[in-house]
Amino acid sequence: MKNLEICLSPELIHLHNLEGKIVVVVDIFRATSTMVAALGNGVSEIKTFASLDECRAMKSKGYLIAGERNGQKVEGFDLGNSPIAYLDGKYSGQKLAMTTTNGTLALSKSKDAEEILIGAFPNISATVKYLQSKDRDILIFCAGWKGKFNLEDSLYGGALAKGLEETHSSEDDASLAMTSLFEKEGNDLKGFLSQASHAKRLQNHNIEADIDFCLTNDSFDLVGKVVESKLIRWA
Amino acid sequence: MKNLEICLSPELIHLHNLEGKIVVVVDIFRATSTMVAALGNGVSEIKTFASLDECRAMKSKGYLIAGERNGQKVEGFDLGNSPIAYLDGKYSGQKLAMTTTNGTLALSKSKDAEEILIGAFPNISATVKYLQSKDRDILIFCAGWKGKFNLEDSLYGGALAKGLEETHSSEDDASLAMTSLFEKEGNDLKGFLSQASHAKRLQNHNIEADIDFCLTNDSFDLVGKVVESKLIRWA
Repeated sequence: MKNLEICLSPELIHLHNLEGKIVVVVDIFRATSTMVAALGNGVSEIKTFASLDECRAMKSKGYLIAGERNGQKVEGFDLGNSPIAYLDGKYSGQKLAMTTTNGTLALSKSKDAEEILIGAFPNISATVKYLQSKDRDILIFCAGWKGKFNLEDSLYGGALAKGLEETHSSEDDASLAMTSLFEKEGNDLKGFLSQASHAKRLQNHNIEADIDFCLTNDSFDLVGKVVESKLIRWA
Repeated sequence: MKNLEICLSPELIHLHNLEGKIVVVVDIFRATSTMVAALGNGVSEIKTFASLDECRAMKSKGYLIAGERNGQKVEGFDLGNSPIAYLDGKYSGQKLAMTTTNGTLALSKSKDAEEILIGAFPNISATVKYLQSKDRDILIFCAGWKGKFNLEDSLYGGALAKGLEETHSSEDDASLAMTSLFEKEGNDLKGFLSQASHAKRLQNHNIEADIDFCLTNDSFDLVGKVVESKLIRWA
């Protein structure tokens, strides 16, 4: 058995040793869900940026640029943060530059890992299968919300840990907590999350369809992996 | 309704605003449980110290000194960290200086709060009652383990939040998670925690009786409160 841990926030990542591990970065609402949607609809590569300006600069290099601030698409950008926008292969074959705050921070703090994947419910089974095929310790890294613990990323951690229980055991307290919590609340994630701070913020922006997408398992049979600073579809 | 939040680790406390709030510091295994045992058995005041040397220096000022390192009582100290040692009023009327790492750190990071309490299962109902009598927002501050999330402190957070649900509502994700987890696992905390990293460490030290004490509700009808840098029995 290999080992599995969950890091509940970027503010706690310095307490974990990433070397030799596969890190799965999770930002369910909505960065990593949107990445899966994009890769699953033919987007060829994704680069992420913390700042609007860095992201905007990618436009002249032939990238689609995507980003929101305060729930609104940024002026001059091609796309916001909605995963739905990528469906039907509308941007197939194109390269994408995204600006997200929590997700980008978590990705940049993962660079010491052996491999970096992104995790989301829409490709959870493919990610489980890929991780089971590797003989590596795993760290699930929740992007959180402005440094704080968040429910949706952590529950995905519990779901992924449960999916891996035949090959990966957990002794860390965060994994035990989130696996148990997922056992209890996993049948109605949407109902449970509707009480949560971030889901409430999203509801205010009328993105019910996004939430449904982000909480639906296995819409895509793909793994999202960072290779040479680019996120690509792997296998 | 007033508001209740849970901070899962001292590494996350800078993300919370403490002003005007009652902070309940929690270090179930074993600092705050031991403090409740001491106050419940007549110890008149408790001061906490991060370092052995600072704690040792209190001996000449008439304090009992208590502390462990690596599960062993420190040489020259009167007591280790076991709550059991205080039972039967053996140290009644005496003043106590304790050195603990996680608990002391959390207490020192709470100083901006309106009031600071310590929380533990052996006085949970008295603490609920006291908090209900106050018209204040509450932050439950888990001492964690070397900065990481830990299960026993967080589950106490869930238990306390549940006890306060008639007067205090929670919108933060940590409270929602821990309240739900406590609903699921609260009936057999000892069994659930036996999988956890810290409980395993404690088991290695043969302190089963300590664990039982720390997980037993309402052995004492007292509130532990910090007044002028000293922890005392309040009401």
